[in-house]
Amino acid sequence: MRVAIIGGTGYGAVELARILKMHPYAELTTVISHSQSGNSLAEVYPHMTGIIEQSMKTLDVKALSKTIDLVFFATPSNVSKEIVPEFLQYGVTCIDLSGDFRLKSPELYAEWYQAPAAASVYLDKAVYGLSEIYQENIKKAKLIANPGCYPTATLLGLIPIIQKEWIDPNSVIVDGKTGVSGAGRGLSLNVHFSEMNENVKAYKLGTHKHIPEMEQVLKQEANTDIQVTFTPHIVPMTRGIMTTIYADLTESVDQVTIQQLYHEFYQTQPFVRIRPEGILPTTKEVYGSNYCDIAIHLDKRTDKLTIVSVIDNLVKGAAGQAIQNMNIINGWEETAGLEHPPIYP
Amino acid sequence: MRVAIIGGTGYGAVELARILKMHPYAELTTVISHSQSGNSLAEVYPHMTGIIEQSMKTLDVKALSKTIDLVFFATPSNVSKEIVPEFLQYGVTCIDLSGDFRLKSPELYAEWYQAPAAASVYLDKAVYGLSEIYQENIKKAKLIANPGCYPTATLLGLIPIIQKEWIDPNSVIVDGKTGVSGAGRGLSLNVHFSEMNENVKAYKLGTHKHIPEMEQVLKQEANTDIQVTFTPHIVPMTRGIMTTIYADLTESVDQVTIQQLYHEFYQTQPFVRIRPEGILPTTKEVYGSNYCDIAIHLDKRTDKLTIVSVIDNLVKGAAGQAIQNMNIINGWEETAGLEHPPIYP
Amino acid sequence: MRVAIIGGTGYGAVELARILKMHPYAELTTVISHSQSGNSLAEVYPHMTGIIEQSMKTLDVKALSKTIDLVFFATPSNVSKEIVPEFLQYGVTCIDLSGDFRLKSPELYAEWYQAPAAASVYLDKAVYGLSEIYQENIKKAKLIANPGCYPTATLLGLIPIIQKEWIDPNSVIVDGKTGVSGAGRGLSLNVHFSEMNENVKAYKLGTHKHIPEMEQVLKQEANTDIQVTFTPHIVPMTRGIMTTIYADLTESVDQVTIQQLYHEFYQTQPFVRIRPEGILPTTKEVYGSNYCDIAIHLDKRTDKLTIVSVIDNLVKGAAGQAIQNMNIINGWEETAGLEHPPIYP
Amino acid sequence: MRVAIIGGTGYGAVELARILKMHPYAELTTVISHSQSGNSLAEVYPHMTGIIEQSMKTLDVKALSKTIDLVFFATPSNVSKEIVPEFLQYGVTCIDLSGDFRLKSPELYAEWYQAPAAASVYLDKAVYGLSEIYQENIKKAKLIANPGCYPTATLLGLIPIIQKEWIDPNSVIVDGKTGVSGAGRGLSLNVHFSEMNENVKAYKLGTHKHIPEMEQVLKQEANTDIQVTFTPHIVPMTRGIMTTIYADLTESVDQVTIQQLYHEFYQTQPFVRIRPEGILPTTKEVYGSNYCDIAIHLDKRTDKLTIVSVIDNLVKGAAGQAIQNMNIINGWEETAGLEHPPIYP
Repeated sequence: MRVAIIGGTGYGAVELARILKMHPYAELTTVISHSQSGNSLAEVYPHMTGIIEQSMKTLDVKALSKTIDLVFFATPSNVSKEIVPEFLQYGVTCIDLSGDFRLKSPELYAEWYQAPAAASVYLDKAVYGLSEIYQENIKKAKLIANPGCYPTATLLGLIPIIQKEWIDPNSVIVDGKTGVSGAGRGLSLNVHFSEMNENVKAYKLGTHKHIPEMEQVLKQEANTDIQVTFTPHIVPMTRGIMTTIYADLTESVDQVTIQQLYHEFYQTQPFVRIRPEGILPTTKEVYGSNYCDIAIHLDKRTDKLTIVSVIDNLVKGAAGQAIQNMNIINGWEETAGLEHPPIYP
Repeated sequence: MRVAIIGGTGYGAVELARILKMHPYAELTTVISHSQSGNSLAEVYPHMTGIIEQSMKTLDVKALSKTIDLVFFATPSNVSKEIVPEFLQYGVTCIDLSGDFRLKSPELYAEWYQAPAAASVYLDKAVYGLSEIYQENIKKAKLIANPGCYPTATLLGLIPIIQKEWIDPNSVIVDGKTGVSGAGRGLSLNVHFSEMNENVKAYKLGTHKHIPEMEQVLKQEANTDIQVTFTPHIVPMTRGIMTTIYADLTESVDQVTIQQLYHEFYQTQPFVRIRPEGILPTTKEVYGSNYCDIAIHLDKRTDKLTIVSVIDNLVKGAAGQAIQNMNIINGWEETAGLEHPPIYP
Repeated sequence: MRVAIIGGTGYGAVELARILKMHPYAELTTVISHSQSGNSLAEVYPHMTGIIEQSMKTLDVKALSKTIDLVFFATPSNVSKEIVPEFLQYGVTCIDLSGDFRLKSPELYAEWYQAPAAASVYLDKAVYGLSEIYQENIKKAKLIANPGCYPTATLLGLIPIIQKEWIDPNSVIVDGKTGVSGAGRGLSLNVHFSEMNENVKAYKLGTHKHIPEMEQVLKQEANTDIQVTFTPHIVPMTRGIMTTIYADLTESVDQVTIQQLYHEFYQTQPFVRIRPEGILPTTKEVYGSNYCDIAIHLDKRTDKLTIVSVIDNLVKGAAGQAIQNMNIINGWEETAGLEHPPIYP
Repeated sequence: MRVAIIGGTGYGAVELARILKMHPYAELTTVISHSQSGNSLAEVYPHMTGIIEQSMKTLDVKALSKTIDLVFFATPSNVSKEIVPEFLQYGVTCIDLSGDFRLKSPELYAEWYQAPAAASVYLDKAVYGLSEIYQENIKKAKLIANPGCYPTATLLGLIPIIQKEWIDPNSVIVDGKTGVSGAGRGLSLNVHFSEMNENVKAYKLGTHKHIPEMEQVLKQEANTDIQVTFTPHIVPMTRGIMTTIYADLTESVDQVTIQQLYHEFYQTQPFVRIRPEGILPTTKEVYGSNYCDIAIHLDKRTDKLTIVSVIDNLVKGAAGQAIQNMNIINGWEETAGLEHPPIYP
């Protein structure tokens, strides 16, 4: 199968290119970049020298649609919503790594993204690509809204217990820690090495775009209204996200029961690994891989539940999950191209 | 004034030595180390070459008491509780950086430290050395239990609002992020460079010794029972602690009012800096200094309060606060020896 | 083909396991570890959870020889030399990642390794596994002495020009910078996070075991005696080696000519990439991959040549090259299992 | 004494401000910044909150000259050369941290800086501020060309032995490793956290502006022509420079003799520490301090000398040495304001 990437100079694109190179059934034939058209990906990313040498191109939707079956959008906000409709019209499957099609409500999008939403017909059509949860819908999708990095880690950590209604939906607090690559390749003082090294920063308190995304999914799974308090932090490493999730238990269940719930919930999922009681996953244990590792801790003293969930923000939190979704759509084994173990140390 | 340090090979000791070198009134005359007696501090820490060259000694309390006025304990748990009584008997002021005298209840100590507590008479005598809050008691103290690093950042962040009773005492969640130096100089795979670099780890969920310490102080200041859910994390940097503190508001106060509360509460305190609304402190902004920088964020959507508090774990979280306490005891200006700005970048 | 790893708890072993997992023709059936026998690799390295779960075993050469065709030694110095002979007797191919069979001279080994050398008959039999250079010998080998990390980067950088005799063999200076994983998983203050982070250290000046290894190969390729001045440094990152190599030109050749020499020398080698004039490779550009990237710079002002050569110390500098050698021995395509691009950023 | 800083938003300026805050005799009364005039230093650098709050100003040389005695230039290249003459005319002492007055030859400056040099009369007047070597000239200077970071580490490491003529002047190779802060606060992909973390980069081979600066001083001290091959590298840390210097011995002197030479040469210098034989300094051992730590290693096998020299690039390599020079000019003790030990770990 032939695929294209739009947005060829960001980290999402180059990570897609890396994984596609290892994919048994999909071939990356075109990389679109306006700012770098004419240059090869290897010129922008020298580590790709000898691996992907073809020139990047500007976008001609009609012409491109004739040569490919599927397109990944690794574009900033407010780009894909203008282009996806045309691709769909030509029958090309679209997997969008940006946030343009994630929120079902145009009003919420306008509020949190400070820009007009995509047309409602496409918002409706888009399937939220949290692979482990929405597999059935993904199979039939022509447009995937690939989840954000924080929501992926958070939702995989919360959905088993929120479906059970064992926690108070209004008690949920998510404390996120991300590696710096989540901020992308755009230059800013904030991620200037000398200012970010040996530093921890909290940011966007109560205003991060991933909040309505988490809430939308949790509401649906909890069958009730839910508000999430979310504080993202940036820590001095390149890759990895940990979300530490706090919630009040409402049922008297014990650690063993919760542990069992998670094991059963994810037992057929190749990319979710539940740690045994007392063992906590670290971000490095999923580095470069598509795994989401989860631990659950019930504090008997305070009756609060703490869930620790880790992913590689660029793999399971972006490019890896996008390819997992491509696999599901095409009926391939879900792990195709994604079987490489984490790199450690 | 002549002072001694006991426990000369740990990071606490060498940080005390660094700051004492810049102190106008105190002179470090003796460093005690059993494992390294006969060697100089500079042999164990080559950065001290030419700065502190005298040999470290084994401990003879009686002899030492004749030559010094004050002793800092930079020892592991369960050491100072055996030695402090004898120093006190000889009239030497003791500032203990370990946890031996922090908990007033011997039962709690036994439970959390898994060892017998110090004799009650000394637990009673010990003043908890959170300088900004217990200044009056510190002035008269002969024995200071210097606070732990996480409790320092957490308590300075919470006390103004907990005293006001504006938050639900049972809603408090503390998510801590520490630099690796907090784990000390002892070798372990956990802090082996290759395993800790490019990694975030949660640890000791619900079992960290700093939990009862935070709760003891908060109970006293809140005048009510209080339970803290605390999750410490270790992030890939050497120095710095950030605690992100979550609590449910119980009063309808707004951001401006809370902001004002904190400004007034700390207006005469030289080492606490309240950030203006919307500005969040980072750990690097206090690196190497005795500051505690605090920001408050009220999320109008969820009515939850988030407090971000940062310190250098080895300065305000250990050696710096110990020296601040020495200054208070001696009636010196509180900032003596501590006036060096943070090192940035 | 069935393979085993001996020395299952070090970084070399777990990197072999990672790459073997992606290999199309070889299957890792046994991991030998004395200290951890009975435990699974995933217990020692949780990132391998669900990937490699079988228990590690103690060594029984005879029994093991019946079930496997090839064995990798990821053991410390002075282990494989005792065991290899028995495996060879049973017809098992041995690839040794340690230094036991690298030096042809038992005297040199005794001098630099401070221990008795392997029996001469095996030293003679062993083929030095620098894949790009000794491919023909490797094809027929039963015992491979897999090169050290510094020698791999250095020799691939130097051999094209040293064969040409365009540089003064006694002018060669090698300044190496390694990531910390090169020091292995053994605990030491030297690689304790807090002491290694934000630090650069030179070490083992003139005494590093890789010196005689480099000199042995260079002598052979230069057909003349040669002495290398080598200074290794450790820098605060986990993976990657850069060697900056200095030499005096003896022929009046220009940059273009040298550039062409290197391009031609390596044109059929899939894992060596020569950078164009003026572009320098960085260690991150080969992270997690089997590439060796090289740049050459001729300083017209001083007539000195500077060669910059980078590898991932655990891949091309250890496990990756070992698997490349296994591929060559078995007549498989050289890149089998090694086609994953570098991880970036 | 009242002093001003020009160029208030770079790392050099804020480091000057940090050290001046601890200085017993000098007071920082004015900070000049065109881009940030009207804002306080604390707004640009929040770690300075409550420490330096006055507004930055635009430059009016005449007015400023009436209120201050000395001015530090922490400006980019090609700025101070236009302004210094006017300050000198008003009798204000100038210490220039940029390269504008370092090279005595206007031709060399034009060649390496790609811009016209300062007027010759000022180049002649300028004293090269390598404090330990040119103390006598510095005492009488009105204009100091403060040395570059790499030259400081390199020259302090080489001058004792080059004066003795024990090494071949044309054999000198300098391999430098710098922390990222040396690249300043200007944004670039090169020092973007995600691209610089876990990475080592060589740069500016044979073209770095510090080459003619090193050569000018070495020529003068060696009394002969000398050419330096210099390769700077950037490593993933914020502060610190190590230069590893290689040279061929021409005299048959042994390690002990060289060791003694260095000890004697620097015995009265408070900021140079010579390590004993076999002990190598690391950059972290001078972090935040004005020390230059040096080790010498004679390789008996190759007769090459290796010198390892470390400084904090922002202190001894910039702001600290500038203040040391201010102290010398004013006849104060050389260590005034600079007595704080290194921060470790």
